[in-house]
Amino acid sequence: MQQIEVKRLLVNYKTLEEFRNFREFGAAELSMKDDLEANIIENDSESPFYGIYFGGKLVARMSLYRIDGKYDRYFEPPQDYLELWKLEVLEPYRGKGFGRVLVDFAKSFNLPVKTNARQRSNEFWTKMGFEPVTYQTDRDRGESPYVWYPEGVKEQLSEDEGPVETLEN
Amino acid sequence: MQQIEVKRLLVNYKTLEEFRNFREFGAAELSMKDDLEANIIENDSESPFYGIYFGGKLVARMSLYRIDGKYDRYFEPPQDYLELWKLEVLEPYRGKGFGRVLVDFAKSFNLPVKTNARQRSNEFWTKMGFEPVTYQTDRDRGESPYVWYPEGVKEQLSEDEGPVETLEN
Repeated sequence: MQQIEVKRLLVNYKTLEEFRNFREFGAAELSMKDDLEANIIENDSESPFYGIYFGGKLVARMSLYRIDGKYDRYFEPPQDYLELWKLEVLEPYRGKGFGRVLVDFAKSFNLPVKTNARQRSNEFWTKMGFEPVTYQTDRDRGESPYVWYPEGVKEQLSEDEGPVETLEN
Repeated sequence: MQQIEVKRLLVNYKTLEEFRNFREFGAAELSMKDDLEANIIENDSESPFYGIYFGGKLVARMSLYRIDGKYDRYFEPPQDYLELWKLEVLEPYRGKGFGRVLVDFAKSFNLPVKTNARQRSNEFWTKMGFEPVTYQTDRDRGESPYVWYPEGVKEQLSEDEGPVETLEN
């Protein structure tokens, strides 16, 4: 059996080409292309994306951003945490545990992890050991944050004033 | 012909029931239910959602949040703006202009509008008069922000330090 291994994706034209198979293809990906073309970033420098190759093909990916603790509104005590985005496994490769391997990789940094459970994916995130947080309109503005707590970390319950105001019409 | 009208959605069990037809059903919707059950918000109070009813059925919706100008990292001069989320038209009602009616309604406040163009929806947003912004990793973290500028407003080009750090592994 082929070993499943998570790799940090390199910024190059091959990676960009692989990205075209995924549903989410937006500004982050296009900016990578622009930066490559303008030589702003070097070919083969490291991207915020991690993925799994299977038979030479990128079949699953996610992006991970480390958020500075001074912006932390989710965890107690406040600390650096990871934002996990764009977790996606290509259709024919689903149900084989690739998603779990990526999530386990994110947890391996032993930092709290936050994601946004989209399109009724909450069952998946619960299986991955994530929990929903208490919804705060001013902080979450329609998102569905699910978080994973390493030992000793719990939910931050804040009374801070947030950026959202009432919309009058 | 039936007149198409945008209504601010009321918080009540009927609205929650209608929401079950939409793909995105997450923390914002569940929190509405919890708040109703716990009498934290009153039945029929106003929600951040706007929608279009057609033949008595909610067929399109979006949420609008007004963001305080002091958090504005998108517009010049910095100012209050609207975040448009969860724009969704039910499958059988697509291609009839309901999406455009909602977007025009958002523009009618004459505040800048920001959205996140998901799943290759950039063509739609361009048709709606929105433009992509220059991608900034530390601010956008994988999002694909598209914005609409009212007259006299332009893109904010900022050198501010953001919340994202490099992830070493």
